[in-house]
Amino acid sequence: MAKNVALHLIKRPSGGPINHDMFERKESETPALKDNEFLVKQTHMSLDPAMFGWMTDDRESYIPPVELGDVMRSSGVGEVVESNNPNFKVGDRVMGMMGWQQYAISNGQGLNKIEAPVSDEQVLSVFALPGLTATQGLLKVGQPKSGETLIVTGGAGSVGSIVGQLAKAEGLRVIGVVGSDEKADWIVNELGFDAAINYKTDALEAKLDELAPDGIDVYFENTGGPIQHHIFSRMNAHGRIVVCGLIADYSKAEPAPGPSWLNVIKKRLRIEGFTMPDHFGEIPELLQLLTPYVMSGKIKHRAHVLDGLDSAVEGLNMFFTGENKGKLMVKL
Amino acid sequence: MAKNVALHLIKRPSGGPINHDMFERKESETPALKDNEFLVKQTHMSLDPAMFGWMTDDRESYIPPVELGDVMRSSGVGEVVESNNPNFKVGDRVMGMMGWQQYAISNGQGLNKIEAPVSDEQVLSVFALPGLTATQGLLKVGQPKSGETLIVTGGAGSVGSIVGQLAKAEGLRVIGVVGSDEKADWIVNELGFDAAINYKTDALEAKLDELAPDGIDVYFENTGGPIQHHIFSRMNAHGRIVVCGLIADYSKAEPAPGPSWLNVIKKRLRIEGFTMPDHFGEIPELLQLLTPYVMSGKIKHRAHVLDGLDSAVEGLNMFFTGENKGKLMVKL
Repeated sequence: MAKNVALHLIKRPSGGPINHDMFERKESETPALKDNEFLVKQTHMSLDPAMFGWMTDDRESYIPPVELGDVMRSSGVGEVVESNNPNFKVGDRVMGMMGWQQYAISNGQGLNKIEAPVSDEQVLSVFALPGLTATQGLLKVGQPKSGETLIVTGGAGSVGSIVGQLAKAEGLRVIGVVGSDEKADWIVNELGFDAAINYKTDALEAKLDELAPDGIDVYFENTGGPIQHHIFSRMNAHGRIVVCGLIADYSKAEPAPGPSWLNVIKKRLRIEGFTMPDHFGEIPELLQLLTPYVMSGKIKHRAHVLDGLDSAVEGLNMFFTGENKGKLMVKL
Repeated sequence: MAKNVALHLIKRPSGGPINHDMFERKESETPALKDNEFLVKQTHMSLDPAMFGWMTDDRESYIPPVELGDVMRSSGVGEVVESNNPNFKVGDRVMGMMGWQQYAISNGQGLNKIEAPVSDEQVLSVFALPGLTATQGLLKVGQPKSGETLIVTGGAGSVGSIVGQLAKAEGLRVIGVVGSDEKADWIVNELGFDAAINYKTDALEAKLDELAPDGIDVYFENTGGPIQHHIFSRMNAHGRIVVCGLIADYSKAEPAPGPSWLNVIKKRLRIEGFTMPDHFGEIPELLQLLTPYVMSGKIKHRAHVLDGLDSAVEGLNMFFTGENKGKLMVKL
């Protein structure tokens, strides 16, 4: 038993920023453990763009929304502090869906033990959703070939930064689109991208012409926004577009139109969307693809760590403003 | 030697209808045959939407445009009437690219002999570009599964009518979008489609809701136009969109925007374009897939035959107006 604190979703967003009115803070004693259950004290919880979808009651979404009144959904890392489950002992570190709360009770389903000597930050930045998403999207959907040119929007984001590094490791020329000079500097000078575009200050068309004079073969889309049309019109024949996120449209009542499909015919393009819940069964395989790159030092990360449960609310808005520098997470 | 008549392209279209000013009619004597050459008297020539691309000087197009001054490009069927080539004898029937002219000289490259007892109309309607395009697009790109729902725009067109019949033969539920009640009647009562939508007169959203209450799995796009967005918003998870043609946009200076990619993520859609020139090497395999369906009577066709070389010019505009009833071709 422990004193739990949790944020419950009580109001859905309807466009515009996320605010504290949408959540209720509840304190409670954790209940006594049943057979096979164990209690996890969460140490870091992850903030991800997918959460906007979870907060919205969109029947068309690929996973059900968080019900009003329920603890907000999130993944995290924690330590077992009490256990009635022989497979999870006190002191074990685990990762999985734990929600916006200090303590979570589990029977083990959907939680994975962390055996390797990696930090919470590395787990949430690389081995959890961002790294799996980047690996599935780039290697399985994007089918990159050495020598090709890849452009990734949200290039300094949690997924984009890994996509770019994986693509470099696969021998591609990599351009990242970012929203600040600081991020541009980071992806080029720290992560090894070939070039960066600051979509807020650069002349997009001229810059794209300069950086991709021979066109673009793989376009990994995390953001949407006006640059989408400029990139699309520069796709090479047989180009592949991996649609992973459209953060620019998540807070809009009406999404911006996409490009005409005329180029889809002329260039024989493939535009393909994916989401990780379809591929949870393939996680072992994805980790096998990703881990060697991490172990050989080819995948660097940067965590942007907020402090305390309440900071999660404001933290989500950083996805719209682009203020976050690296993978967003909350230290509990 | 024979008296040839040909239409040469002398002016490119710039949006709007095709007219006689764009062509020059030239009469000439066919030159003497060189070694290995033979002379074909064309009997029927095909009119295809791809011709708009060939007439336009679009450097991004997948095959080079017709040069100004050259005979307009087209495929056709004909009979060998003189030969210096041991493989093509006088009396042989051949199909291939022959151009807008009465007589064509060839060394055999790109021409195929027609050995089977099929009419010119059947060759151009089923075994040539339309049937190959439908087979490649539906079976290879669309990956249809029995029990799924398919919608095809241009459902009474040369490609669309074959797509729908192939899909029926594969066990799908098939809806065709057409531009007249006569065509709707034809595809449902003659070709066996499950239903038709007249995009000019039906209330599109209500009709789609009625005919596809469980959504759409495969969307074979031949036309574009406003119905595109309504179909797109009804795609099921893991749906496939085969982009084969956008005739509604070919005559516009600025193509209409496409749908937002938000649904591409939510529904994990694949949008893929293709054109036959990439797959000419696979024609034997495609014919192997197609022929059994034709031979068992599952692929019916309807030819819309215009009379005489000059009728080709006006004929092309029928693709915009939708006046043609069946595969357009010109009898010479």
